Amino acid sequence: MSDSEPEPETQTFSADQLHAFCQDVFESFGVPQADADRAAEILVLSDLRGIESHGVARLRSYYSLLKAEKINPRPNIQIIREMPGTATVDGDNGLGLVVGPQANEIAMDKADQVGTGWVAVRNTNHYGIAGYYVLESLKRDQIGWSMTNTSVICAPMFGAERMLGTNPIAIAFPGKVNPPIVIDMATTPVAFGKIEMAQRKKTSIPAGWGIDKMGNVTTDPNAVVDGGALMPLGMGRETGGHKGYCLSSMVDLLCGPLSGGNWGPFTPAFTVGHTESSRRVGKGLGHFFGAMKIEAFIDLEEFKSQIDDWIQTFRATKPAPGTNGPLIPGDPEREAETVRRESGIPLILPVVADLQFIADDSGIELG
Amino acid sequence: MSDSEPEPETQTFSADQLHAFCQDVFESFGVPQADADRAAEILVLSDLRGIESHGVARLRSYYSLLKAEKINPRPNIQIIREMPGTATVDGDNGLGLVVGPQANEIAMDKADQVGTGWVAVRNTNHYGIAGYYVLESLKRDQIGWSMTNTSVICAPMFGAERMLGTNPIAIAFPGKVNPPIVIDMATTPVAFGKIEMAQRKKTSIPAGWGIDKMGNVTTDPNAVVDGGALMPLGMGRETGGHKGYCLSSMVDLLCGPLSGGNWGPFTPAFTVGHTESSRRVGKGLGHFFGAMKIEAFIDLEEFKSQIDDWIQTFRATKPAPGTNGPLIPGDPEREAETVRRESGIPLILPVVADLQFIADDSGIELG
Repeated sequence: MSDSEPEPETQTFSADQLHAFCQDVFESFGVPQADADRAAEILVLSDLRGIESHGVARLRSYYSLLKAEKINPRPNIQIIREMPGTATVDGDNGLGLVVGPQANEIAMDKADQVGTGWVAVRNTNHYGIAGYYVLESLKRDQIGWSMTNTSVICAPMFGAERMLGTNPIAIAFPGKVNPPIVIDMATTPVAFGKIEMAQRKKTSIPAGWGIDKMGNVTTDPNAVVDGGALMPLGMGRETGGHKGYCLSSMVDLLCGPLSGGNWGPFTPAFTVGHTESSRRVGKGLGHFFGAMKIEAFIDLEEFKSQIDDWIQTFRATKPAPGTNGPLIPGDPEREAETVRRESGIPLILPVVADLQFIADDSGIELG
Repeated sequence: MSDSEPEPETQTFSADQLHAFCQDVFESFGVPQADADRAAEILVLSDLRGIESHGVARLRSYYSLLKAEKINPRPNIQIIREMPGTATVDGDNGLGLVVGPQANEIAMDKADQVGTGWVAVRNTNHYGIAGYYVLESLKRDQIGWSMTNTSVICAPMFGAERMLGTNPIAIAFPGKVNPPIVIDMATTPVAFGKIEMAQRKKTSIPAGWGIDKMGNVTTDPNAVVDGGALMPLGMGRETGGHKGYCLSSMVDLLCGPLSGGNWGPFTPAFTVGHTESSRRVGKGLGHFFGAMKIEAFIDLEEFKSQIDDWIQTFRATKPAPGTNGPLIPGDPEREAETVRRESGIPLILPVVADLQFIADDSGIELG
């Protein structure tokens, strides 16, 4: 997270301030209070955990889509197919931040009943950070899985155009004494937000993050934004780019075709300004949630002790030259959260300007 | 799969020839006929599909371990914990090629009953290609998942020693008219077999595949073999190496701690010659199988039609310069299988020598 470039100027807000603002904005469109509260919680959690690309920086997109009536603020979320361990949910074009948590709860309820629950969701929208959902599973002593397909931005290996989203995967494992292992990763080398950040900071990007519109690897963030694409994790063929493409495809196939949602290049655009695909192959975006009751597999305390041991073992790895040795997945986010709950969330000025735009446009005070 | 170096000399065998030899070898240790047959099927399928690193090239390791009585040829495979959608299986230190298929069937049976089935397996050994298991799921109109942890060979990001295996993930999706999408990938840039192949061919490896024993990136395959390690998929921090490390860890955590198997650096060595860790944290290796009944989520024919559409859409992607455009996951393996079923399996001479060693040592004719 720490780049060598000087940090741009920021303005710091408390989590409560941002939560209240987001909640008020959602409620102003008729989102029920409890839903608006949770949606705000997810967005602010992202900023707290240092994943700025998915936090309040996205509020303007949600705002625009709600204002344009492209998202249903009061969806009738329904199970349209079900077995004891599975369900398919139609999100009625609600906010992903509203549909996602409810679908995830269905998965967790099923895991309590039959050991595991898997829920495919269609007709939904962007659901915030994938990690939120698996942190919920931890509260129930379950291992949660969370995936979503997203607006198209990544080229498949050997491709020269956007065909897949950043399509994240999250999963978490609870420790006993140690904090949990929390994996939350896009299946691209970086989230698109990193390209936008480089664009805002006017810095170059490493070769391997993206291609230009001709399909050539580029270090210019503008070339990626301007009709180019992210590369898949692993980058070129020789270094395993086909594997990142496979992972991104896996997420897309589980979230799209399996739920009856859109997939690949036909996923809905996240912002009003983006060009929409002229073709629809399903309804809305798709998510895919899994939950596994730990006790269904092994004694819970034994499992947590093993996770503690795993964490301590990996922390003791011999460090690579010039490093402090391996981190445990979730370390950077947890450390950011500790700091930011205490001292607030620094937002870069373009994001503050977006929030101010919403405040001015809606009459809701930013505080 | 096509490198620019000249191919080493090979000797070609038919699939039937190799199958018969492998089966005879397994049976000679008392492996029951049906088990030996299936174990041979999995090994030879790997060679047919062009994944030479996991095919009969591994027979000598299995042979040595069976001969040293480190693997149980007639395991009493038992479910030790169970819910309607989940099970934990103890493989009684059997061949992974025997334990794996039985555990996978339990997952598939559960998926038929409650929509999804997930089975953690401990006290098992190497199970061949991850892809075999998900191809089985396709026969039952299910989406199969297959993972295993493996002998330690990969460094975590920022680490300078071997802490994780190549820890593969496989999953497959059936088409209607098109052949299935089959994902089968190590969570390292390459399988360790590729390093060994480079060593045998005396060629260098790309920067990013591995590190030397000091933790520095190297292009010398000998330096990786001699106390170095594979890097995780994504390689360094800037290009997403933490994500490959996360994926490999995910597989390890599901296969090890969740099943009660060993994990990380404590996984058993695959060959008699390798140094064994002095510590055990569980029993044997671990696998993790999942199965999802497609009809539990969506109409089967609708799903298959969508997969066809997905395949055709991705095949039509604008190609990157100098390429023929994206492949569909599973293309290279399926094409190899078509060719090799017809014209035989070319084995490089060091592998032939290994088989001949087994033939001479056991008195079983290579044919």
